[in-house]
Amino acid sequence: MPVGNIPQSKIYPVAGVRLSTVAAGIRYPDRADLVLFEINQGANVSAVFTKNTFAAAPILICREHLKQDVPRYLLINTGNANAGTGEQGLRDANHTCEALASLVDVKPEQILPFSTGVTVEFLPVKPIVDNLARLVEGLQETAWQEAAKGIMTTDTVPKSHSVQFDIGGETVTLSGITKGSGMIKPDMATMLSFIATDAKINQTILNEMLVTAVNQSFNRITVEGDTSTNDACALVATGKGASIVSEKEQFIFQQYLSQLCETLAQYMVRDAEGATKFVTITIKDGANSKDCLEVAYRIAHSPLVKTAFFSGDANLGRIMVAIGNADVPQLDVRKVVMHVAGVKILEDGIDLLYKEELVETALKESELEVCVSLGMGECAETIWTCDLTHDYISINADYRS
Amino acid sequence: MPVGNIPQSKIYPVAGVRLSTVAAGIRYPDRADLVLFEINQGANVSAVFTKNTFAAAPILICREHLKQDVPRYLLINTGNANAGTGEQGLRDANHTCEALASLVDVKPEQILPFSTGVTVEFLPVKPIVDNLARLVEGLQETAWQEAAKGIMTTDTVPKSHSVQFDIGGETVTLSGITKGSGMIKPDMATMLSFIATDAKINQTILNEMLVTAVNQSFNRITVEGDTSTNDACALVATGKGASIVSEKEQFIFQQYLSQLCETLAQYMVRDAEGATKFVTITIKDGANSKDCLEVAYRIAHSPLVKTAFFSGDANLGRIMVAIGNADVPQLDVRKVVMHVAGVKILEDGIDLLYKEELVETALKESELEVCVSLGMGECAETIWTCDLTHDYISINADYRS
Repeated sequence: MPVGNIPQSKIYPVAGVRLSTVAAGIRYPDRADLVLFEINQGANVSAVFTKNTFAAAPILICREHLKQDVPRYLLINTGNANAGTGEQGLRDANHTCEALASLVDVKPEQILPFSTGVTVEFLPVKPIVDNLARLVEGLQETAWQEAAKGIMTTDTVPKSHSVQFDIGGETVTLSGITKGSGMIKPDMATMLSFIATDAKINQTILNEMLVTAVNQSFNRITVEGDTSTNDACALVATGKGASIVSEKEQFIFQQYLSQLCETLAQYMVRDAEGATKFVTITIKDGANSKDCLEVAYRIAHSPLVKTAFFSGDANLGRIMVAIGNADVPQLDVRKVVMHVAGVKILEDGIDLLYKEELVETALKESELEVCVSLGMGECAETIWTCDLTHDYISINADYRS
Repeated sequence: MPVGNIPQSKIYPVAGVRLSTVAAGIRYPDRADLVLFEINQGANVSAVFTKNTFAAAPILICREHLKQDVPRYLLINTGNANAGTGEQGLRDANHTCEALASLVDVKPEQILPFSTGVTVEFLPVKPIVDNLARLVEGLQETAWQEAAKGIMTTDTVPKSHSVQFDIGGETVTLSGITKGSGMIKPDMATMLSFIATDAKINQTILNEMLVTAVNQSFNRITVEGDTSTNDACALVATGKGASIVSEKEQFIFQQYLSQLCETLAQYMVRDAEGATKFVTITIKDGANSKDCLEVAYRIAHSPLVKTAFFSGDANLGRIMVAIGNADVPQLDVRKVVMHVAGVKILEDGIDLLYKEELVETALKESELEVCVSLGMGECAETIWTCDLTHDYISINADYRS
């Protein structure tokens, strides 16, 4: 059960993109586990990938293929991440690209492979290759919701967001699906996100826009602080619709793209493994973005803070401890002001002002806001996270058995 | 229940040190919660403290008092950490020092106060002050075991270690007690450690020896990566016995001191909240100590690795993911070799070599060794940690209620 509502609303088709899913039996029977995106010729595609040094085989291949050609197909499997699989992993992923390429008559370099699931096990190539023909036959413009289901692993609900807006009198469509319980989370919960628009956007601008959007969204969420070997986010601009050229057009599109990514990112935190609380952490009045994020992630990654969020116990000294552990050498604790659920908890650095009963009720709610002013400057950053629960332990201790 | 054995063996008295405990009812009734160390005139005392910016009131006072005079008394309470308590916290701690000082006729600056327990609540001064006379009356050389019990919070067993050895024909005694479930752990589990020797050691050398020993022991353990506002380790050299002067004498004493600190540090990990596994992580062939520790702590702090240790599931790809997230830019994954429980898991960077059944039995044991070779140089570091369990969540979600 996700925290709060993850709406299953309409996903607008994107002219130029067709999708298909099949149940290939890669790991579990009778569930869609293979997803194909077909992208029209003339589209531009941008993508960002995990920074993990042990990037998985499909990630290494995506990076190579993107240098060589413009993608025409995205081939995604769940159940197996093809990570920690060395040379054979590369051969396996290449094999699936080559099989698909010969089937649809494009170059293997025009296919981007994505995998999510268990690590350090070889990719089951046969069920993938055997099902490619069925997958291609099933391609249709309206299969977005099925694709959102097909990329799920430990997710409890499919996650999508879709908007239409006006640029220069033309309707622009922007649709995205995502899976995972955090950008910053590996194994069965790798983040994969696929977004498409019918707008026409040149490659350089598309790249910049994706990086900007990801930095404000997927790079601002955390569940437990680990980054997967397989994280990827791809953005397709099919060019079938409005052209995004002027600065104003770019500005508008960027706003909608960033908002869509933020919505998808928040859905992942809401559906994070075992989560019972959705927590927004804002650090303001910092000297710079780095300091704000350092403090924010110290709070978000502290198991003691996260278990206090879980219990709803007003044990807020733990947040103070986490702030104090941040690597912000110039921090003057007497200037730190903290609000939790709108109630002032700390002022003049270490003076406690709160009455426990004022926050106790708020701490039982499923949505919680923590705001810390560092009193050092004018920078602010917001990140989103969740609590640490018994269910998190159960899911991650037991899921393979 | 700690992991493995924490022996309750004899603690040798240290000439020049007397101890006493009373049940003052600071938080819980009928348990010793106030401990006093009396130190002879002429002793030297060294101490190291938390690096947390929000250092608690007693820590701030200890730092001041150590600048002004040589300590004669260490006054320790459990049940309340006097942290996040601002100016009143300082007044409260000073009040207890002054009350004790007038009772035993020393200067308040000759008393070091230590507190551990809940944060962001004011120190109950009255039960402390009211019990000081009883505490002083009860001072005796042989009360080390009672003191080890008196400083406990969430610890399940008292922790002590004591050795006698020979330097230049004279027997040197070194005895220490500790509490906490990690140097790196706040709230009810602050680390406090008190060590005494009858050796005569000058102040500068004593300071250096303590820093060296702490860096190799208390600074090499972690439970969940948080550093308390109250962590402290004090070392008393009463000067009643052998003089430690020559380089050889210093070398011998340092060896025993470091070993004693390592033993006490490991006891804390063995008794960490909810722990069922004691895990030794060695990173070798690193370019420098910083890289080795970065990789070691990435593994030790990954909740996914820690839950895999808990479950005993051979989901060892998670360790690879954690290594890949370490900030070691020059890391070449093809050179990384990893052994878990003596079985080679990774070689040539990303090639998996292991057969799950080889490690499965080892992963069910309560003691586990992880060894990673980075293939970059000749530096090695070892740290000790534990798993992340349901009981950890229960203890930290519920302990105040």
